[in-house]
Amino acid sequence: MPVSPKAPTPPTTDPHDAQVVIAGGGIGGAGAALVLGLRGIRVTLLEKAQEYKEVGAGLQFGPNITRMMQKIGIWDRIEPLVVYPNRVEFHNAVSGDLIGRLDLVDMRQHYGSPYVVVHRNDLLQTLVQAAQELPTVTLLTAHGVTGFEDIGDGVQVRTATGETFRGQVLLGADGAHSVVRQALVGDDVQNTGYVAYRGAIAWDDMPEKRVARDAVVCWAGPGLHLMQYPLRGGTLFNQVAVFRSPSFETGNPDWGNPEELDAAFGPMCEIVRNCIPGLARIKRWVMADRKPLDGWTRGRVAMLGDAAHATLQYLAQGAGQSLLDGACLARLLGGLGAAPWTSDDVARVWRQYEAERLATASRVQTWSRTWGEMWHVSSYADTLLRDEAFRAHDPYDYSLMDWMYKPQD
Amino acid sequence: MPVSPKAPTPPTTDPHDAQVVIAGGGIGGAGAALVLGLRGIRVTLLEKAQEYKEVGAGLQFGPNITRMMQKIGIWDRIEPLVVYPNRVEFHNAVSGDLIGRLDLVDMRQHYGSPYVVVHRNDLLQTLVQAAQELPTVTLLTAHGVTGFEDIGDGVQVRTATGETFRGQVLLGADGAHSVVRQALVGDDVQNTGYVAYRGAIAWDDMPEKRVARDAVVCWAGPGLHLMQYPLRGGTLFNQVAVFRSPSFETGNPDWGNPEELDAAFGPMCEIVRNCIPGLARIKRWVMADRKPLDGWTRGRVAMLGDAAHATLQYLAQGAGQSLLDGACLARLLGGLGAAPWTSDDVARVWRQYEAERLATASRVQTWSRTWGEMWHVSSYADTLLRDEAFRAHDPYDYSLMDWMYKPQD
Repeated sequence: MPVSPKAPTPPTTDPHDAQVVIAGGGIGGAGAALVLGLRGIRVTLLEKAQEYKEVGAGLQFGPNITRMMQKIGIWDRIEPLVVYPNRVEFHNAVSGDLIGRLDLVDMRQHYGSPYVVVHRNDLLQTLVQAAQELPTVTLLTAHGVTGFEDIGDGVQVRTATGETFRGQVLLGADGAHSVVRQALVGDDVQNTGYVAYRGAIAWDDMPEKRVARDAVVCWAGPGLHLMQYPLRGGTLFNQVAVFRSPSFETGNPDWGNPEELDAAFGPMCEIVRNCIPGLARIKRWVMADRKPLDGWTRGRVAMLGDAAHATLQYLAQGAGQSLLDGACLARLLGGLGAAPWTSDDVARVWRQYEAERLATASRVQTWSRTWGEMWHVSSYADTLLRDEAFRAHDPYDYSLMDWMYKPQD
Repeated sequence: MPVSPKAPTPPTTDPHDAQVVIAGGGIGGAGAALVLGLRGIRVTLLEKAQEYKEVGAGLQFGPNITRMMQKIGIWDRIEPLVVYPNRVEFHNAVSGDLIGRLDLVDMRQHYGSPYVVVHRNDLLQTLVQAAQELPTVTLLTAHGVTGFEDIGDGVQVRTATGETFRGQVLLGADGAHSVVRQALVGDDVQNTGYVAYRGAIAWDDMPEKRVARDAVVCWAGPGLHLMQYPLRGGTLFNQVAVFRSPSFETGNPDWGNPEELDAAFGPMCEIVRNCIPGLARIKRWVMADRKPLDGWTRGRVAMLGDAAHATLQYLAQGAGQSLLDGACLARLLGGLGAAPWTSDDVARVWRQYEAERLATASRVQTWSRTWGEMWHVSSYADTLLRDEAFRAHDPYDYSLMDWMYKPQD
């Protein structure tokens, strides 16, 4: 008998006594809450912000992510939000030359699922709303996780409100600067010295209209790139400008400031230069990642998403990989049944989770770095090689992406 | 009436009163002496060594060089010395994979003149012998040029023997460490921190036979390469191993020593490793070049070959470009006639010489650096791009080389 979304929360979903406590209500955490809840698992999600809000503008989902969404039944909710770009275009940002294409219409046929782009906040709101409709899921804002204790048959999770939440397991989905990872691993993020400026503005307000509006467009230059794609049915246009700050190495506390943005993109071709004023200059993002780990779990605690495998954005897989983590955990934990999970149960799930997810997510981390290095080559020789290699690539050849996009099962 | 090679030198060829004094009897200087002498110009060549001897093993001539040799009538003497490789092969030195080819049989059809390789000393001996047969050419060994003075209507050239040689002009063909350039320009060579070991050994003695014997083979690895090709009808096998010395930057006076050679090539594929013992370890060459100049002449003095435009060897154009210089100068000076050359005559010839030769030779200098950087890429990203770009290159597409190989007139 399906539970009505309007039904009052039954006593078994006391948020202080959940099966799964999730630290962090970003895309990874909210997505995990949703897919766990869809399997009837009692979830309490603890988010430190006052409201659910994704900063940044757009994100991309490759065929591996949309396939999973179709498979677990959340695609119908996501699909109305997305735009289907026709292709990826790579340009040399200095000359403006088109140096490579990837056909996304053909790619959809090839992999059986589409490549889409979506507004980050549209996606998050949809995930949160869908999770909130589920009777076994409680989402709490203004409840930042400050610490936790593994108590053998469960985890006690403390929040900044002074409360304690009990879960049979804790999932650390608290992002690149994860409290959970700090406790489990204690490593530092790897700052690359690159910084990003973003902005999604009305297409009508775009200062430069000579840009493909039906594509994901990447302008690759020395130590920088500009990424562009449409959002919300093409009414919005999303831009991300990324560059290596010349003053990062010198320890300038204001490294990556807007003056450096202008200086970096000043020598680019006219079209690229004209696009830069479309970026929001009040906020900037540091491009950092984490070293791949041998494992993401300990005792009753597991990490997912950026907390487990923070990656540079160059393969556009960060958000999608976090949703894959959640889908995997939901399937495995859902298979354990309703009785209290033993430590052996949990250990078996964690082993399987790592077996399924760790190799791919780690490869995303290392390949994202490599892929970014290819975009950002600086020397004349390297740029010639990059342009020649990109030009030579068949727009219908996805073999380099098979490890990532192909069905895994 | 043709002058017999055996005829005694007529008084007009007093070596102390020549039309052209050449400093340096390497391939550039000896080649210039030959082509000037073929036009009846009185030449005195001053070489510091006790005998004419080219160190190093092989060299390569592209279609631009063999075309010139055919045109000026020296090809018949060179041709018996050369080997015609069928192709250039590029391999990744780490994996051993063949990543690119250039078809030299087809290239010969395309450009109308062949790509050949030849033993450096075979070539030099032939140039010297051919020059010695000419009645107006005097070649003197053990006569290193120590200084010179432009006296308005000519040049007084001093040698280490204490003699003075008068010429209407002086050609500085005294190589990468040119005395003439030191006086005219005073710049330093640009040391790249790379060092080369060479060796031409009997094919029968090659420690590794799984190498193409009918090709120019280049194994490109991180900060290194190994170049191989046959000489003397394939009886000899020429090898050049080049690597970036890890201790160059640290100021080690013994940088680039044989232990570093072994360490650099140790991680390469088995075939490459097996070839390294075939190199002579008693001598090594520093890979250095010069910055391109705006001009190569002053007053009654001009430079040619390495003195004018020392280049890294990666386009295999160093020797050939020096012969092009000599051929150009012989044509222009030959056009001046027998009467004493006025300063205006000489200035006009120098302007024309620079107009014809400077742009191409400078491009060889800058492109050789770029080409070497492509071979020597180190990072994973750059290596992927290099291999992809080389793989994508059509073995029958020479368009990138047209500026160098195509007839200029």
